[in-house]
Amino acid sequence: MSRIDDYLAAHAARFEDDLCAFLRIPSVSADPQHAADVAAAARWVADQFAGLGFAVEVIPTKGHPLVFAQSPTVPGAPTALVYGHYDVQPADPLEKWITPPFEPTRRDGNVYARGATDDKGQMLTHVKSAEAWIAAEGRLPINLKYIIEGEEEVGSMALEEYIAGHAEKLRCDCVVISDGGQFAPGIPAITYGLRGIAYYELRLKGPNRDLHSGSFGGSVANPANALAQVLGALIDDQGRVQIPGFYDDVTPLTPREREQFSQLPFDEQRYFEQIGVAVGAGEAGYTTLERRWARPTFDINGLWSGYQGAGAKTVLPATAGAKFSFRLVPNQEPSKITAALKWRLAELCPPGIEMELIDFHNSPGVLAPLESKYVEAAARAIERAFGRPPVFTREGGSIPIVAAFHEALKADTLLLGWGQDDDNTHSPNEKFSLADFHRGIRASAQLWAELADLGGK
Amino acid sequence: MSRIDDYLAAHAARFEDDLCAFLRIPSVSADPQHAADVAAAARWVADQFAGLGFAVEVIPTKGHPLVFAQSPTVPGAPTALVYGHYDVQPADPLEKWITPPFEPTRRDGNVYARGATDDKGQMLTHVKSAEAWIAAEGRLPINLKYIIEGEEEVGSMALEEYIAGHAEKLRCDCVVISDGGQFAPGIPAITYGLRGIAYYELRLKGPNRDLHSGSFGGSVANPANALAQVLGALIDDQGRVQIPGFYDDVTPLTPREREQFSQLPFDEQRYFEQIGVAVGAGEAGYTTLERRWARPTFDINGLWSGYQGAGAKTVLPATAGAKFSFRLVPNQEPSKITAALKWRLAELCPPGIEMELIDFHNSPGVLAPLESKYVEAAARAIERAFGRPPVFTREGGSIPIVAAFHEALKADTLLLGWGQDDDNTHSPNEKFSLADFHRGIRASAQLWAELADLGGK
Repeated sequence: MSRIDDYLAAHAARFEDDLCAFLRIPSVSADPQHAADVAAAARWVADQFAGLGFAVEVIPTKGHPLVFAQSPTVPGAPTALVYGHYDVQPADPLEKWITPPFEPTRRDGNVYARGATDDKGQMLTHVKSAEAWIAAEGRLPINLKYIIEGEEEVGSMALEEYIAGHAEKLRCDCVVISDGGQFAPGIPAITYGLRGIAYYELRLKGPNRDLHSGSFGGSVANPANALAQVLGALIDDQGRVQIPGFYDDVTPLTPREREQFSQLPFDEQRYFEQIGVAVGAGEAGYTTLERRWARPTFDINGLWSGYQGAGAKTVLPATAGAKFSFRLVPNQEPSKITAALKWRLAELCPPGIEMELIDFHNSPGVLAPLESKYVEAAARAIERAFGRPPVFTREGGSIPIVAAFHEALKADTLLLGWGQDDDNTHSPNEKFSLADFHRGIRASAQLWAELADLGGK
Repeated sequence: MSRIDDYLAAHAARFEDDLCAFLRIPSVSADPQHAADVAAAARWVADQFAGLGFAVEVIPTKGHPLVFAQSPTVPGAPTALVYGHYDVQPADPLEKWITPPFEPTRRDGNVYARGATDDKGQMLTHVKSAEAWIAAEGRLPINLKYIIEGEEEVGSMALEEYIAGHAEKLRCDCVVISDGGQFAPGIPAITYGLRGIAYYELRLKGPNRDLHSGSFGGSVANPANALAQVLGALIDDQGRVQIPGFYDDVTPLTPREREQFSQLPFDEQRYFEQIGVAVGAGEAGYTTLERRWARPTFDINGLWSGYQGAGAKTVLPATAGAKFSFRLVPNQEPSKITAALKWRLAELCPPGIEMELIDFHNSPGVLAPLESKYVEAAARAIERAFGRPPVFTREGGSIPIVAAFHEALKADTLLLGWGQDDDNTHSPNEKFSLADFHRGIRASAQLWAELADLGGK
């Protein structure tokens, strides 16, 4: 790798200049006035790949275009699919930016601009790593595919459809995504698992109109009472979801995972202080990180019924409703959860109440086993570039596009975030550490070597 | 009573004319533009009493005046306190009235006008009955006091204060109120019991702001979950309130009451059809009328938390709240219920949740025992006037002014409604049956005789 390292060192300043050129394009996908800028960013990305001699397509969609690129074939070598996005969040409130959002500015070792970390800077590391290989070694050691979208900040609608329809074209041994953060400054991380989600709305109907609670109360089912009883019965006082078979398919935490989580420098007290609670809560028998990352949940997201104004109104409401969701963990199947939920709700629904369940959206959890050779290869690559091995983390949220890749391609996803918690993602003064930018390029270049060593499937 | 009956017959037309004169005064207490009309109605009422030779006071308040009148003392005879109100509801929507609301019109045996049944017509029966005694017999057989207010439709604030401060002045053997309805056409009723109420707002606080349910869910108590669990645990699946000692002081239904309720011509199927429910619900072991009239309840009146808009939002809400109330039955003490509720809520409140209970207002239930000699006297009086004995009913709602009389005077209250369900109280085309008006006057005159027969305390 010494020739590649030399190339990275020699071209570091130009890489930063290229990043700044990219950041100057205000590719705000949510704002129709920036449509031409979004298209310009897509072309800028496509030009990068064309400059490397890759086959490139700018694929029109109902929304903003996808950029797909493919390196020259290396027979017998594995294939990595890099995902990223060239669109950015709106920049407002503009007055809170120290320097303008689309005039990238280097200070204190960072580059400040909208999109610096999310995701232009991070995504570009995987392009510059390919450039370094080609320039320094004359060739890439593996097959690389890139799918770079322009709608991540507005829902990835076009990409989800494209993935479902083009599994063969996107086929790969692993998916590589850098669109997140390290565990802490100086502590790089591999996020090897995500929770899924199943989100519902429940509507309960009692009498045909709001009734006087004095004249009628006690003789007719109250849908607000029923809602409290039904929802209250979906979880017990140990934090366990009370739906038949809910835990049957849960992939349990391994002793190795639990040990690794427990070793992370996670300040639980500070975590609770920041969100303003005196104590934690959740499923009995699990730590806070385990509860956040690797255990399923039931959370009511919204509740409504009857009178919500000031003072008292003696109404027996005609209807009541709730939005609620389960965070799912790998191997829980959303459709199976929905079926069991419906059975449980029917069991709980009291006489005199009509119930309607609306199944909003769902997405399964995703897990790349810690023992995956791709995870191990990424860990070695990161250790080389960052000077210390990464920690292995999971994430409590859901990234539907990762689930979509997993569903269509059945390949492990490597979530290699180069960012930091204080990068001001989606906020004014977004930044990206230039040291992390260069470490990310180096880790990416190293990853291609490590993957090559694994050989093809 | 034959001289009195003769007098009632001879003056029936003039009584109707007097009622129409009263109804012509648009004494809308809620509307400041009608303040002079409200004052005129008070004077009209005072003049009625003055014409009978009663001592009369028009008592100014912060709001509309009270009219207090007292008949000449009859030593050794019991005292009845008549309550009524001379104010009326607003008349809108005006366009829905067949004849104008303040131009009383006789048709189909009814008088149509705002206030006809609520409460000018009903209240006046107890004035005209006194007139008949004085004119026909030269004297009243008992002592009568009248307290007629002008704020019933806007909350009775001044009267509640007045009662608390003037118990000695208002002292009586029984309170007589005609401001309600018969059980059905041709079936007069004595309402001998009212439920009370205890109304609360519960506020739950979790984290210091709304959190992402993916990143945080499962590790921190969710106040909406807690609300469902807490409220759901306040009532069991048999409809029994789960608060320690909640039923301890409940005056049980007597076999006689249950028998009488079961004999009432109550069409349960029609009741459920009208409110649009397939089946009833409520406390196990009781009939629909028993549940409505004589058993305590728990009803959630309002619920709110998190996201109530369209679609899905993956929020773990910072707060959740509810308004809820218990309908209380006679002998349940609101302050004791509040204390037990607080104990129970503290027991149910999960770790990580802060709870605040706001005690809005309460009022105890009221019961005049069926065996009360005053109830029996009223029953005899009604039977004479209406040609059939009244049924004995209770009412599920609360009338705070009745509780206030009960609290201050410790006297039984006779609720003798002369109205009908279809009188359009508070609606366009309010009416009062002229036959009921005259029967009410006769029943009232008879009641004075029946009470006289009981002698003083």
